[in-house]
Amino acid sequence: MVVSLIGAGPGDADLITLKAVKALNKADVVLYDYLANEEILQHAPDTAKLLYVGKKAGEHYKTQDEINEILIKEAIENENVVRLKGGDPFVFGRGGEEIFALIDAGIKFEVIPGVTSAIGAPTSLGLPVTQRALATSCTIVTGHEDPTKAEKQVNWDFTADTLIILMGIGNIKENTEEIMKHRPKNTPVCAIEKGTLPGEKVIFGTLEDISTKKIKPPAILIIGEVVGIYKEIYDYQKNIK
Amino acid sequence: MVVSLIGAGPGDADLITLKAVKALNKADVVLYDYLANEEILQHAPDTAKLLYVGKKAGEHYKTQDEINEILIKEAIENENVVRLKGGDPFVFGRGGEEIFALIDAGIKFEVIPGVTSAIGAPTSLGLPVTQRALATSCTIVTGHEDPTKAEKQVNWDFTADTLIILMGIGNIKENTEEIMKHRPKNTPVCAIEKGTLPGEKVIFGTLEDISTKKIKPPAILIIGEVVGIYKEIYDYQKNIK
Repeated sequence: MVVSLIGAGPGDADLITLKAVKALNKADVVLYDYLANEEILQHAPDTAKLLYVGKKAGEHYKTQDEINEILIKEAIENENVVRLKGGDPFVFGRGGEEIFALIDAGIKFEVIPGVTSAIGAPTSLGLPVTQRALATSCTIVTGHEDPTKAEKQVNWDFTADTLIILMGIGNIKENTEEIMKHRPKNTPVCAIEKGTLPGEKVIFGTLEDISTKKIKPPAILIIGEVVGIYKEIYDYQKNIK
Repeated sequence: MVVSLIGAGPGDADLITLKAVKALNKADVVLYDYLANEEILQHAPDTAKLLYVGKKAGEHYKTQDEINEILIKEAIENENVVRLKGGDPFVFGRGGEEIFALIDAGIKFEVIPGVTSAIGAPTSLGLPVTQRALATSCTIVTGHEDPTKAEKQVNWDFTADTLIILMGIGNIKENTEEIMKHRPKNTPVCAIEKGTLPGEKVIFGTLEDISTKKIKPPAILIIGEVVGIYKEIYDYQKNIK
């Protein structure tokens, strides 16, 4: 019994790693969250049991405790269990909690990283999250703070050159107001809807006006000067296609 | 003529994406940097021209201008040119500069993201860079600051819960001293040598003592409370193997 905790990547079914595909190929059971792209499940054998235990923004199909219980039960009963998550399992994927549950149950596991949408979505578009002489650091943060997090709230004074917010649309107005206490209100921002998927869309703005634009979650927010230089790349890509 | 700028992932040859493999499969020319793993080049056809234009820490085989020139020349003369970089092309990969050179030359391009070693190396080990109730933000920064960067130096007052430093061994003493102005000196730190590759090694310490440990570059530094909880995972993995 071994559990492979796998990152499925940012959405595009081809942005999964070879290593993840190989683990899926021999899976007896696949526990999966809401995936941007369910095509990825086709890498599992036809005989594999596919269990949706997912959570989508605003929808909690299973609690984390319930997921942990199912994971342990399946791991005890099967040789190869895959736990599949969007993006990377440890970038706001709650993979750490599942690992500790497996440790408590004495189950063997491996973790296979995935392309996090925080970087994969902008990179796929041609948006460089770091750029020599302009951006030498980037911070990835969740815009949807955990209400149970002990002691501290997210403080939006992140000094990194580029700020990338996942799950940031629900609280976009409150969060950009906080960020404007630390960055100029005309700082360039873009939202990437459906990154790496059909229907992908980029919406440009500034810290001051991005919350007034129509943005459909799930979307990623990118904040910083790199968005300014990306506008040129975006226009070029649009014209050359 | 199209250039595919591709991220090869953190090292393990199986941590490349399917999309990158497909682009390599039809490459006429591959320009590659120093790669943690040259096995990845085997995805290119036998007939493909393989050009090493790499840079390794402390070694500059080609200047960036020379690389841009070769890239443009090959793109004009060939149908499918792959520009292969370790990790993700836009996480300190100087991919942005190459994109702008291609734009100036009127060449069509696509960018295929890769698993950045900043996240892929810790995730593969089972080290969660974010963890509910403990770490809801992470910053990725280069420890080897660009001396030509205009106006500002890296200011080490990053407030993100987890701090990940790439290329951070050369300046480890200076950088950790700066970071201790902003974080407790007993903050847990680990260095990951050869992440995702044979010979991978984890070295634990604190902000105060990590610079006194023997760490061989290239290595990644992870700083923050997640390293504290990872120690338990590390011990478990070692005992269960």
